[in-house]
Amino acid sequence: MNQAYDPAQHLNQARITGVSITPVAFKDPPLLNTVGVHEPFALRAIVEVHTDAGVSGFGETYGDAGHLARLQLAAAALPGTDVFNINALRSRIAQALEQDTSQGGHGMSGMVTGSSTADRVLSPFDVAALDIQGKLLGRPVSDLLGGAVRGSVQFSGYLFYKWAGHPGQAEDSWGAALDPEGIVRQARTMVDAYGFSALKLKAGVFPPEEEIAAMHALRAEFPDLPLRIDPNGAWTVETSIRVGKELHGVLEYLEDPTPGIDGMAAVRREVGMPLATNMCVVSFADVAPAVAAGAVDVILSDHHFWGGLRRSQFLAGITETFGLGLSMHSNSHLGISLAAMVHLAAATPKLDYACDTHWPWKDPSEDVIADGVFTFTGGAVQVPTGPGLGVEIDRDALERLHRQYLDCGLRSRDDTGYMKRLHPSYELQSPRW
Amino acid sequence: MNQAYDPAQHLNQARITGVSITPVAFKDPPLLNTVGVHEPFALRAIVEVHTDAGVSGFGETYGDAGHLARLQLAAAALPGTDVFNINALRSRIAQALEQDTSQGGHGMSGMVTGSSTADRVLSPFDVAALDIQGKLLGRPVSDLLGGAVRGSVQFSGYLFYKWAGHPGQAEDSWGAALDPEGIVRQARTMVDAYGFSALKLKAGVFPPEEEIAAMHALRAEFPDLPLRIDPNGAWTVETSIRVGKELHGVLEYLEDPTPGIDGMAAVRREVGMPLATNMCVVSFADVAPAVAAGAVDVILSDHHFWGGLRRSQFLAGITETFGLGLSMHSNSHLGISLAAMVHLAAATPKLDYACDTHWPWKDPSEDVIADGVFTFTGGAVQVPTGPGLGVEIDRDALERLHRQYLDCGLRSRDDTGYMKRLHPSYELQSPRW
Repeated sequence: MNQAYDPAQHLNQARITGVSITPVAFKDPPLLNTVGVHEPFALRAIVEVHTDAGVSGFGETYGDAGHLARLQLAAAALPGTDVFNINALRSRIAQALEQDTSQGGHGMSGMVTGSSTADRVLSPFDVAALDIQGKLLGRPVSDLLGGAVRGSVQFSGYLFYKWAGHPGQAEDSWGAALDPEGIVRQARTMVDAYGFSALKLKAGVFPPEEEIAAMHALRAEFPDLPLRIDPNGAWTVETSIRVGKELHGVLEYLEDPTPGIDGMAAVRREVGMPLATNMCVVSFADVAPAVAAGAVDVILSDHHFWGGLRRSQFLAGITETFGLGLSMHSNSHLGISLAAMVHLAAATPKLDYACDTHWPWKDPSEDVIADGVFTFTGGAVQVPTGPGLGVEIDRDALERLHRQYLDCGLRSRDDTGYMKRLHPSYELQSPRW
Repeated sequence: MNQAYDPAQHLNQARITGVSITPVAFKDPPLLNTVGVHEPFALRAIVEVHTDAGVSGFGETYGDAGHLARLQLAAAALPGTDVFNINALRSRIAQALEQDTSQGGHGMSGMVTGSSTADRVLSPFDVAALDIQGKLLGRPVSDLLGGAVRGSVQFSGYLFYKWAGHPGQAEDSWGAALDPEGIVRQARTMVDAYGFSALKLKAGVFPPEEEIAAMHALRAEFPDLPLRIDPNGAWTVETSIRVGKELHGVLEYLEDPTPGIDGMAAVRREVGMPLATNMCVVSFADVAPAVAAGAVDVILSDHHFWGGLRRSQFLAGITETFGLGLSMHSNSHLGISLAAMVHLAAATPKLDYACDTHWPWKDPSEDVIADGVFTFTGGAVQVPTGPGLGVEIDRDALERLHRQYLDCGLRSRDDTGYMKRLHPSYELQSPRW
């Protein structure tokens, strides 16, 4: 609408009137990692922010009980806040969380510790506020973040060791992947279906030699695709250096081989390829120590724990300024999170790698957004161009996945507990090898 | 307007149709600094960005000939760009500047070298684009930057040694300030008129002992006001350390005592008070070396050379992340720049000090914005709440100041040349003492 400017016609106002927080559960295959195995359902919380403008917006975050309680604390503090003032949302949330003395329930099964509680809780509200802003303003969220520099966003194919199915259930459509052949078969299926142009293996499950063999097998099958391996800190510094040397020239980066900034720095001094992390740099407080120690080359950002989209842009500014690479981390997620990731990635000029996503592991019939927005072509999805996040909520589906949450009985992600129930001899260990 | 959401009614579009760049000149008193003395007129360029939405927006920047030529190069590359895509503006400008082989004309008289040409040229276009966005969206620019965390922004009183008037002209209303008594008298006038709650002395003009005496005189007269001194790198490391020790407990920070990152780091190791800079960290490329060297405690941001408001926010994210303080630098400026500075400062949660401004040195009858927006109370100005920058251009005044530019004959800022014409024995030296 190219109309003459009349400020009186353009006073967009939107104050928060309330927040609905809906925990949902969706089916998740038995994906293995170093802390255990994914349970039959993944939990998420769908946050809907209501305003007096007749428009609501959505964010998506972890669905663990502890996190839900903190979301409720935050939500209670927000009515009356202008959704155009994300700084005000942030300070109200930080204040509300001062009452919180709870521990745990962070939704990441012990693999991302040390992230900022305030930033983790802020995230879905930041996304929902930007969704509302975009809807009111008639612009996609990417524009509110400085404008899309790309029309589509590349993702990597996220490979997992997995059982054929959850114990007691039928084999799932992916089948088992417990050796190099199984991983290559899984990769072929995923690449054929999604066109991914990079591949990542979640490792730390089998002894390093077997996982090295899997990477060589992937390299042989996909000679041109950049490869990554992520054992979630399962290796000692020594093992990490050994694996790093053996996979030199095979990987585009080595992700979190060993725990902690000092360990990563020790590995980095001996290994030629870039080291990436979403474990030792997970909040702004970690950045300066990691830079000083020379611990990493690439940070995997994640708006779910870096305080939403605007603060994730600060992280991008930091990585660019300090000559670090930038990639993007993922947990099991639904379409609202994918939309937010895509808008952020689109508006991030210096994004150096294809982003992670668990999207292929989700049952296509299960989501809270209406179908048809996201299709992977050549490993990429188009950036939505509609107002806000550009996705529409399917309220029937939301209700269905909420009912599934109520019925499934899971209240917190517990990969370790599930594994121990199935294999009592399993022990959590970091590093493991 | 709390209306139900109808996306079709809200498709805001604004593509750039053209850019008008108007150089202006406004009267400037004979303010002394270590590189010379302000000429009788200060030069600025007013950038107006026109769009097909019937709305235009404004930015303000340096008016030097070299910079004007680069602005024209940039302007020619922008038609067709969506003003909501600041990333696209930035890449088009960077590309346009690849043709540029000119040197100099940066508008800062040799006191801020090494800033990024692309960021300096981008700045007024970024501000104008945000002004247009805000006007179309019915929101102040501070909202587009994340929301105002304060309703008013504190500035410091910017004291200068000065002659009574420009040679050959009558004494100006401020009169001379060439010794501690003159500086205290000037400070008293300024504090009484504006209510400033912090004071900064532009130094590097007289031998350090005289300037130390001026600071002690200010401390005696204003026992409660935070004080700063800025010799623009006029001192050796040794002199800086000596002055730093003598003024320990008197200053809130010591600004650019000596040139360069290494020199500043050497001073910082010996001086207990915070060291601030707008000379050795003036672009994103300077940040990592300065952090690694431990060169500074406080960065004085300036959206005119840090790439506009959005990129200045990245700088704020960096200073917060690395535990640095943040303050704001100023050159002689008009009301559009003040508006941009105020919106940025308002939306910057961690802004640790009162910002610099040359505002009091401007003849109140000379500006390109309509009167009445900015009044200093208690050293602070209110953040405009109207759409965009919240200032209105006075086109008659713009024309008047443009005619003054044409008539005055100045085409580049040259404090040193002016001083040398008046005092042929003057020599540019850094460090000087």
